[in-house]
Amino acid sequence: MGVPLNGAQVFVHGVGTALPGPPVTNEDIAAHYGMPTVWRQWVDEFIGTRSRHLAVDLGTGKTSHSLTDLGEIAARGALANAGVAAGDIDVVVMSTATPDHLAPSTVSRIAGRVGIAGVPVYQLQSGCTGAVQALEITQDLLRGGAYRTALVIGGDTSAKHTSPDVDAASVPLEVQVNGLIFGDGVGAAVLGTAPAEGRPVLTHAHSRLVGAGRAPGQTVYWFGRAVSGEDGVPASEDFKAIETTAAPMAADALKHLLHELSWDAEQVRYILPPQLSARMTDRTLSHLALPGSEPISRVTEIGNTGNAIPYFQLELLLPRLNPGDRAVGISIEASKWIRSGYALEQPATA
Amino acid sequence: MGVPLNGAQVFVHGVGTALPGPPVTNEDIAAHYGMPTVWRQWVDEFIGTRSRHLAVDLGTGKTSHSLTDLGEIAARGALANAGVAAGDIDVVVMSTATPDHLAPSTVSRIAGRVGIAGVPVYQLQSGCTGAVQALEITQDLLRGGAYRTALVIGGDTSAKHTSPDVDAASVPLEVQVNGLIFGDGVGAAVLGTAPAEGRPVLTHAHSRLVGAGRAPGQTVYWFGRAVSGEDGVPASEDFKAIETTAAPMAADALKHLLHELSWDAEQVRYILPPQLSARMTDRTLSHLALPGSEPISRVTEIGNTGNAIPYFQLELLLPRLNPGDRAVGISIEASKWIRSGYALEQPATA
Repeated sequence: MGVPLNGAQVFVHGVGTALPGPPVTNEDIAAHYGMPTVWRQWVDEFIGTRSRHLAVDLGTGKTSHSLTDLGEIAARGALANAGVAAGDIDVVVMSTATPDHLAPSTVSRIAGRVGIAGVPVYQLQSGCTGAVQALEITQDLLRGGAYRTALVIGGDTSAKHTSPDVDAASVPLEVQVNGLIFGDGVGAAVLGTAPAEGRPVLTHAHSRLVGAGRAPGQTVYWFGRAVSGEDGVPASEDFKAIETTAAPMAADALKHLLHELSWDAEQVRYILPPQLSARMTDRTLSHLALPGSEPISRVTEIGNTGNAIPYFQLELLLPRLNPGDRAVGISIEASKWIRSGYALEQPATA
Repeated sequence: MGVPLNGAQVFVHGVGTALPGPPVTNEDIAAHYGMPTVWRQWVDEFIGTRSRHLAVDLGTGKTSHSLTDLGEIAARGALANAGVAAGDIDVVVMSTATPDHLAPSTVSRIAGRVGIAGVPVYQLQSGCTGAVQALEITQDLLRGGAYRTALVIGGDTSAKHTSPDVDAASVPLEVQVNGLIFGDGVGAAVLGTAPAEGRPVLTHAHSRLVGAGRAPGQTVYWFGRAVSGEDGVPASEDFKAIETTAAPMAADALKHLLHELSWDAEQVRYILPPQLSARMTDRTLSHLALPGSEPISRVTEIGNTGNAIPYFQLELLLPRLNPGDRAVGISIEASKWIRSGYALEQPATA
């Protein structure tokens, strides 16, 4: 399916984000775990991510922020940025891989805190393409006329999977890598069909399961440090598959997105690339043939924030957009392999 | 919002379900845990549920079926019942409180197994109203024209929360109750806008978060027996709040549903009530003022199957429907309190 020609236009009314605590640098992590200088040099070279924010305090081992805590801040920020009251929200769509509980949903707790009531609240269980899935569902619900104003929220916290007291040198390499590439954070946006002066249109968002015949590239288990201790590996990745597959899959996602939009590559002013790690983002950008575009990336400073990624990028993008500017975002999920993309356009002035 | 007057009609093309293993009766459970006769009498009286199916073998402690395993069977059943090929599915929407992993999503694994590829796959993290939320989203996506044919899936397995080797007499009462009221199972349905001869229309589905000012009635934690052992309680319920709140909230859900449909209570031929426990279902039915209606309930034989509930009820309902028959389903989620309802109507013959 291409971009529907009928249906209402969907505007991005506002964006909000939340990061826990101060940035935790590679130097901080090396010092905490007593890792040698050569280790940090290796991290800088092969991962490239320089810092991230964590919802767990490495010093005390205490969880400083729940996903609900961060979600409340991001949701309030998006509502304020949009100039929309909680009572005007018709539906809430959240996405996360790491909910605070299996029940109640984190979205219902966030909605309760910000004063949204009496409306449907949905929470997607999803990996790195989850935010685009949430944008896609919300776009389709708004276009179809089911709702007028929606709050979308996405984010992750790895606190349940972080082990501040582990002997890092004894931990498998892939677990070390996970601890370095991911950063905690939540983002939110208000989307609506009411025209919003100076705000971009969400032209299109789509996600596609493309895992047929592929083994999962990432598996995240239920349990976390609170109960698993060091007995089990909380998450596992096939980094080799990710390294070889993610960049071409991102290029494929871009190709499909531009095709469905009937946009030329030359018309794209900004590219919001995947944020797996700073090194992988650079590698992926080199696969995306967008000669005149400027990348909007946060991965070097805040890491891979999972379901929050696009909101942190949109937060930078929105103030830069000039009338007629077009932007595309690409996200790839290694779990069972989902490719996704979204596009925005700043309306030309009348 | 009321029922949209525009948009396509959504038909229920087919339903499929899956239950693990043979039924496990209260006698089986009493014998396994060495509980006295008086305990079983208490269960029969105050819970009323007589049997359920479990994805864990009480004798060996081994998990016999994953949620993916059951989901595959239910999905294949729904496709066969609908006469629809996997390749004709445009979108998949699943709901569960108990996914096999945090990533990949269980829906993407089920889609992979049944041969659905290249389409969006969504998984809601949800409690007992999850199936209605999935029906609601799918209905809105289909009506809005985003898709033509959808597969919806819902189910739960409590295997991660079951402790076959526990000393049951030492377990808190609410944990005992959880072990008795829940049953494992998955259901699925094919919904589509193509007219389907002899199949009902999903007239309306809606869910509303109504937890403002209420403490959560149910909390389910991430961890299960595999890692938690007996250290922690895997789930907690406020059964007193559920007992006093669920039945009136169900009546409220019915009132809102009929109002949005402009249906009279006398026009409802079948009622698909909540399935918390056999006793609570009876209690709730007495609160639902539907004098001429016949209840369609499975709770006594299969327990509370969570996100699978409506599919097991629809499986019984569909063959009974005569032209012009109307049915309503009600579901209440105690977690952060969501009320939901849905309505079906068999088209009158031409």
